[in-house]
Amino acid sequence: MPEQLRDIGPLVAPGSIAVIGASTSALKPGGILFSNLVNGGFKGPLYPINPRAAEVLGHKAYPAIGEVPDKVDLAFIVLPRHLVKASVEQCIAAGTRAACIITAGFGEVDDAGRADQDELRDLARASGIMLAGPNTIGMINADCAMQGSFVNFPHWERGGISLFTQTGIFTGALMLQVMSQDAQRLPIGKSIDVGNKVDVAEHEFLEFAAGDEATKVIGFYLESITAPDRFFDRAGEIAKTKPIVVLKPGRTEAGAAASRAHTGSLPGEGKKHQQAFARAGIVEARDEAEFVDFLKVFAFLPKPKGKRIAIATTSGALGVIAADLAVEHGFEVPALAPRTVNALQTILPDWLAPANPFDFWISLDIKGAKEAHEVALPAIASDPGTDLMLCTLLAPGNADFEGFGPLMAAIRGDNPGKPIAMVIYGGALRPQWIAGLEGLDIPVFGSTDAAMRALGALAG
Amino acid sequence: MPEQLRDIGPLVAPGSIAVIGASTSALKPGGILFSNLVNGGFKGPLYPINPRAAEVLGHKAYPAIGEVPDKVDLAFIVLPRHLVKASVEQCIAAGTRAACIITAGFGEVDDAGRADQDELRDLARASGIMLAGPNTIGMINADCAMQGSFVNFPHWERGGISLFTQTGIFTGALMLQVMSQDAQRLPIGKSIDVGNKVDVAEHEFLEFAAGDEATKVIGFYLESITAPDRFFDRAGEIAKTKPIVVLKPGRTEAGAAASRAHTGSLPGEGKKHQQAFARAGIVEARDEAEFVDFLKVFAFLPKPKGKRIAIATTSGALGVIAADLAVEHGFEVPALAPRTVNALQTILPDWLAPANPFDFWISLDIKGAKEAHEVALPAIASDPGTDLMLCTLLAPGNADFEGFGPLMAAIRGDNPGKPIAMVIYGGALRPQWIAGLEGLDIPVFGSTDAAMRALGALAG
Repeated sequence: MPEQLRDIGPLVAPGSIAVIGASTSALKPGGILFSNLVNGGFKGPLYPINPRAAEVLGHKAYPAIGEVPDKVDLAFIVLPRHLVKASVEQCIAAGTRAACIITAGFGEVDDAGRADQDELRDLARASGIMLAGPNTIGMINADCAMQGSFVNFPHWERGGISLFTQTGIFTGALMLQVMSQDAQRLPIGKSIDVGNKVDVAEHEFLEFAAGDEATKVIGFYLESITAPDRFFDRAGEIAKTKPIVVLKPGRTEAGAAASRAHTGSLPGEGKKHQQAFARAGIVEARDEAEFVDFLKVFAFLPKPKGKRIAIATTSGALGVIAADLAVEHGFEVPALAPRTVNALQTILPDWLAPANPFDFWISLDIKGAKEAHEVALPAIASDPGTDLMLCTLLAPGNADFEGFGPLMAAIRGDNPGKPIAMVIYGGALRPQWIAGLEGLDIPVFGSTDAAMRALGALAG
Repeated sequence: MPEQLRDIGPLVAPGSIAVIGASTSALKPGGILFSNLVNGGFKGPLYPINPRAAEVLGHKAYPAIGEVPDKVDLAFIVLPRHLVKASVEQCIAAGTRAACIITAGFGEVDDAGRADQDELRDLARASGIMLAGPNTIGMINADCAMQGSFVNFPHWERGGISLFTQTGIFTGALMLQVMSQDAQRLPIGKSIDVGNKVDVAEHEFLEFAAGDEATKVIGFYLESITAPDRFFDRAGEIAKTKPIVVLKPGRTEAGAAASRAHTGSLPGEGKKHQQAFARAGIVEARDEAEFVDFLKVFAFLPKPKGKRIAIATTSGALGVIAADLAVEHGFEVPALAPRTVNALQTILPDWLAPANPFDFWISLDIKGAKEAHEVALPAIASDPGTDLMLCTLLAPGNADFEGFGPLMAAIRGDNPGKPIAMVIYGGALRPQWIAGLEGLDIPVFGSTDAAMRALGALAG
């Protein structure tokens, strides 16, 4: 019988935080991290640990973690490499329950660093303190308003995606990417970067996320899997109710070597893990863009009730391209229901019969862009014979009309159970239309294949 | 022995042009098309054909093509559907060598339209007139300054890509896409949209492009292949010196059905064609984004001399991701040469040895962003043991430095035979850095996998 898993709540959802190395300088990582915690409005007490300051940003400073009058859940350690071990020992002595070691320069750099890192691991095992890092950008958690990173995220959209990443600065770049307008600001609830992953591992986060009500989708960037049996056993269960998306390079020898250099990981079993992901129902992404696409489709859309897809497009060619890729990603492209056909016929010439894919560029000439889109898109979205919808819309200036956002909001509201995704292509309206979809949970993809891959992953 | 191919020069590179239906209204397709030809500075005589105008935009108008005093190479026909056949007959009677039928509503809509379209085909066969269309947005050609389309392309960058497309409005959207800043303004020399492809076909265009000095890369969007034997025989030869990229949906039954509805094509043999593309050395794209990526990599980069790739990155994770995908797309990721390693060591701490992928985020802290990039990127680009280079750079604000564009220009100039591609990720600098690469023939891709797929296609 496997031992009971630790509750990593004190690490990822702490009630109190100390920052060891909380500089008063806004240019130093420790200063930035502390100021991000303060400005983020962390819900519990904050203790800056700084022997050369009486207070930092209005919070009373302590010369050492041992001087803090209360037990601390989580200490961020932002110190030079040679001071880290002693700092962890002080945390242990003070009864601090978890530490996140921001400092880099351990297992990812050389043998001495790996030896130091192994000492940190041994300290954790011997004492029970939970460690994240070293070599991490930190952790954020919307529930307790923890912005525990030296990277600032001004456009953070709170929501149901929980991420666990085994890497350093890439997590920061990934966060900036998913929080950008172009990526439709993915709703992130937690982003836990464990860097070189000296201790707390993905199977523990998986258990936390499974029990966390706010978590709807779980994403992993991994370079190794600490306890494959435990991870895959539980993942298979959890993935049935909470989608799990993973990006795990190191499949090839070159990738494995790069991974050793990066986080000191020994991935080794890349191919075996790929099969295990598939068996467990975990969705595997190939690269950073697909990782975001997959997170987006699960965060925004319900699972379709079946595999019948309706394609609405203002480009015949994009319709043909979409039909092929739909089938190749496991969908059917059935005829539209009679009532849908009747509605669509009103915006086509008599001699042209509505089909699936439904190409209505000609309707823009006949009815104008507004009426064409306002008839076509709701009719297809409510087609009773299909389970999901892809709209691939051309976006040149002459397709513009008042009310694209409200139209899509109405469609989204009228068809709550049906996944609707978009591709917006070839023209100046793209940014404006994407902005019009804000808050509607209608994912926009960069191309037809990207959309179909993501929808295919969603449909399972 | 196959019959001699026609020279389609009069159609795609005409010396004189008539526009039948050259309206004086800037709102009608015939008026817009004529004004685009005039404003584009077409190098030969332009004849507006309009029985209700004495002149159009300063050009003497004629009531009928037969009244034009000279033989005309190419007539654009922009008339209602029921007038098209008579117009083609008038072109034939007048000795016009080619006609491009813009008008839609033929084989793509119904049986009557298909019958009308067959009549056009029969007229072409009987008379020898060369036809493009019906259902096309027109044709552009930089050599004779022909902007023969009702779509306006204000950001047209002239260059070595020649396109032949069997579709209508998608060609316009594709052109707007490839001419946008975000797609780095692909250099387009010719874009010949034959719409429903009643007559002039891809094998004829292939022969024209093969003999055309200005053409460096040939791209096809096809929904059918008129004469597969002739096309594939010649394509295999031509692809050895001029890369050929094709996007041809209709691989599945659903795709084939959509294709029939779109251009009236009967693709049928999708799978067989895919194998033939591969045998002929034609690069096949899956969707509209990959089509542009593939055109870009061939237009911008020389073929690498081997398969050894160097990866420079400011993200360890993106380096690991790139190493895997490099191998999976046929590359090796060898160790860097000693001289490269020595140069790179100067921006790393002593305890960290330069590797391939070379992750130098830490150098930004040590040396500042400017020196880090200015040492790392030239050293890796000139590494004697690798044949091509991918730079995957993080673009948050703190990676900014003066002189990114000039740095990349110098690197490009110093390494003329080596392909250099980029991914720029995760931050606000992306648009600015892409703009800095303008004119440098350094392609930027949307993700690591997209970059590696394109480089894999380039390396063959």
